[in-house]
Amino acid sequence: MSKLVGNAIFGQSGGPTSVINASAAGVFTEALKQESIPKVFGAANGIKGILEEKFYDMSCEGAYELELMKTTPSSALGSVRYKLKKAEDDETDYKRLLEVFKKYDIRYFFYNGGNDSMDTCNKVSKYMQKVGYECRVMGVPKTIDNDLTGTDHCPGYGSAARYIATATMEVYLDARVYDTPMVCVLEVMGRNAGWLTAATALAAYKGAGPDLIYLPELDFDMDKFLEDVKEVYQKNSGKVIIAVSEGIRDKNGKYISEYGSDLAKEKDSFGHAQLGGTGAVLADILKKELKCKTRAIEFSLLQRCAAHCGSKTDVDEAFTAGQLAVRYAVEGITDQMVAYEREPGEKYNCDFKLVNLSTVANTEKKIPREWINHRGTGLTQEYINYALPLIQGESTPPMEDGLPRFAKLKKVLATV
Amino acid sequence: MSKLVGNAIFGQSGGPTSVINASAAGVFTEALKQESIPKVFGAANGIKGILEEKFYDMSCEGAYELELMKTTPSSALGSVRYKLKKAEDDETDYKRLLEVFKKYDIRYFFYNGGNDSMDTCNKVSKYMQKVGYECRVMGVPKTIDNDLTGTDHCPGYGSAARYIATATMEVYLDARVYDTPMVCVLEVMGRNAGWLTAATALAAYKGAGPDLIYLPELDFDMDKFLEDVKEVYQKNSGKVIIAVSEGIRDKNGKYISEYGSDLAKEKDSFGHAQLGGTGAVLADILKKELKCKTRAIEFSLLQRCAAHCGSKTDVDEAFTAGQLAVRYAVEGITDQMVAYEREPGEKYNCDFKLVNLSTVANTEKKIPREWINHRGTGLTQEYINYALPLIQGESTPPMEDGLPRFAKLKKVLATV
Repeated sequence: MSKLVGNAIFGQSGGPTSVINASAAGVFTEALKQESIPKVFGAANGIKGILEEKFYDMSCEGAYELELMKTTPSSALGSVRYKLKKAEDDETDYKRLLEVFKKYDIRYFFYNGGNDSMDTCNKVSKYMQKVGYECRVMGVPKTIDNDLTGTDHCPGYGSAARYIATATMEVYLDARVYDTPMVCVLEVMGRNAGWLTAATALAAYKGAGPDLIYLPELDFDMDKFLEDVKEVYQKNSGKVIIAVSEGIRDKNGKYISEYGSDLAKEKDSFGHAQLGGTGAVLADILKKELKCKTRAIEFSLLQRCAAHCGSKTDVDEAFTAGQLAVRYAVEGITDQMVAYEREPGEKYNCDFKLVNLSTVANTEKKIPREWINHRGTGLTQEYINYALPLIQGESTPPMEDGLPRFAKLKKVLATV
Repeated sequence: MSKLVGNAIFGQSGGPTSVINASAAGVFTEALKQESIPKVFGAANGIKGILEEKFYDMSCEGAYELELMKTTPSSALGSVRYKLKKAEDDETDYKRLLEVFKKYDIRYFFYNGGNDSMDTCNKVSKYMQKVGYECRVMGVPKTIDNDLTGTDHCPGYGSAARYIATATMEVYLDARVYDTPMVCVLEVMGRNAGWLTAATALAAYKGAGPDLIYLPELDFDMDKFLEDVKEVYQKNSGKVIIAVSEGIRDKNGKYISEYGSDLAKEKDSFGHAQLGGTGAVLADILKKELKCKTRAIEFSLLQRCAAHCGSKTDVDEAFTAGQLAVRYAVEGITDQMVAYEREPGEKYNCDFKLVNLSTVANTEKKIPREWINHRGTGLTQEYINYALPLIQGESTPPMEDGLPRFAKLKKVLATV
């Protein structure tokens, strides 16, 4: 073990989740204990906060508030969607990062996020290596999308899945109270990977879920869809529940959300189209086709911040991932992301491992075809077996006046 | 006390809530204990189930499932939106009801619902009196809308309010993670009364709620709205959270959901316009006006069936209201609705009283003007003091595989 003494900085990046702050709590509590890390900083808005020299001195935060971060959704430090250019093309940001790292003697860099954020983390790691600045760089995974490669599952997914399955069960009961037809379309997040939408299959497994589930892994065929729905409509006296990923596309790659809508698509800074409206478009089409009441429900932000319905398994694992990132780095590891490995056997047990940042950066893991049923309208038992352990245990914030008490950070700006 | 021996029937009517089944559990468990009630029936789809002679023998249900009804959202027996004509205009339905009541020796009629349902209950009560058929008729209140007159608050409101406030706090954290402007419009249910939307003020009271709240009690003025939003936008670096009732209208009575949309409005069988889209319309207008990212979030059905985030106070009161309806009826009371009365004093204590069905039928209680701030953009402390006790205590269903275990009724059809 090569000993490296220096300060640490941690940043949160990408869309928030219910447990990104749990990982932060893991990183902070562990780093604050380490002798070789004199100061622990939390970057405001991820990499942007470092570039702008805006970060907080985490030793100023009380232990209780750090503990509360475990059950506080969203990104307590602020997040960012900022894509670093390739160092070969433009070194400006990297030079600035190096300058800030030197100025604050930052020798440990922890970055929490999904595939785009692991790309950032990877680029920083490689640059620091190239210029010979000794700095241990560790990625901490995070994404409700569950689409990172090299890890069995991702922190944030279990809690989002638990909320989605729970809310789906409740909507299932609500949407069939009248003895008249009612077709309900649930729209779930997920651009390219259907993991979140698949979570509605857990509700179906408990007998109160969608009749039909459509994932972006498969081309969406409108004619087949209408056929599928009509079949269930006939069978169930007009009661149909459908779950769709926001990102479903037809065989030509056209988003279903674009059907019937001429709204110009917006693109975010990563070039992703801003999606939404898939459920509404389908509900509209079905209303015309079936001439019955339809309703679209979009889980929207609710699904990624519902810490009141968190999975304890997810929260605990996210916290541990943060802790381990620090421990590994102190032990000499760098350029890696902490990942989850499921131990073989009937009983669920999550182990941890390391994967190269370059393996994770910008890649996407989708649902295997064999976990989707033949007809492309539901998930197989293999998915249920995979997902069920991830939503176990209840994590709820402490209550104050009947409402969650979330962490309140002091956010004292760090100085040299 | 005049003793009346005969069977009892209970029906659920109108939009479901998180606690309508808790009231059902109260009615059933109490009625099944009463010597003077040999058989207890549960009507499938409310009054329609009685007209169609489709109801269940509740003695066939196990005690555990009846207990689970306390934490099972929606209407376990099925609900209905069916308006009885005035008996003077058309006696058909009433004659049929009398026929069924006589056939099954029904002497106790319990009906659970909001103002439309209390109208049904009232009409049945008056008709049975007129024709001299001895039958005790009791209303059990229910509505997330909290708009029934003659009662301090309504079963279902506390749980919906708790979910809305909780989800608002979570969205508040999620919607401000980036250091770029973001305007978020939360759309909450409520046609004419703003009680549900007001619940977002509880989140604001805890420091994580909307900057601006618009209720249907006041005329909505688009120019003033844009002014309000711009002011907050300036003050908060582009971070604005707005909560609106689906039913806000301009001074000419035009729904805001109709702005920018030429979609023909549909009317349900009570003549209510089908609302929706208010948040989306406003988010769209703000996007054009402010040229920043906006997002509309509709709580939709989620807000009325979120039993996983129920208020224990609400569940307990709803159960007791059901129990008391039976006890009062057995004691000789008829033609009344069980209502809540808040005892005076600092400490919250809910007492029960009776109100005439004709007082409750078809009336609506709105938020008093003095509970809305001067500018019409938020609630006063009086509302907070009113609402806070109603959301106290956590009610969650028992969990099975990490997901709620809801009641599963056998639904054995009753025979003579």
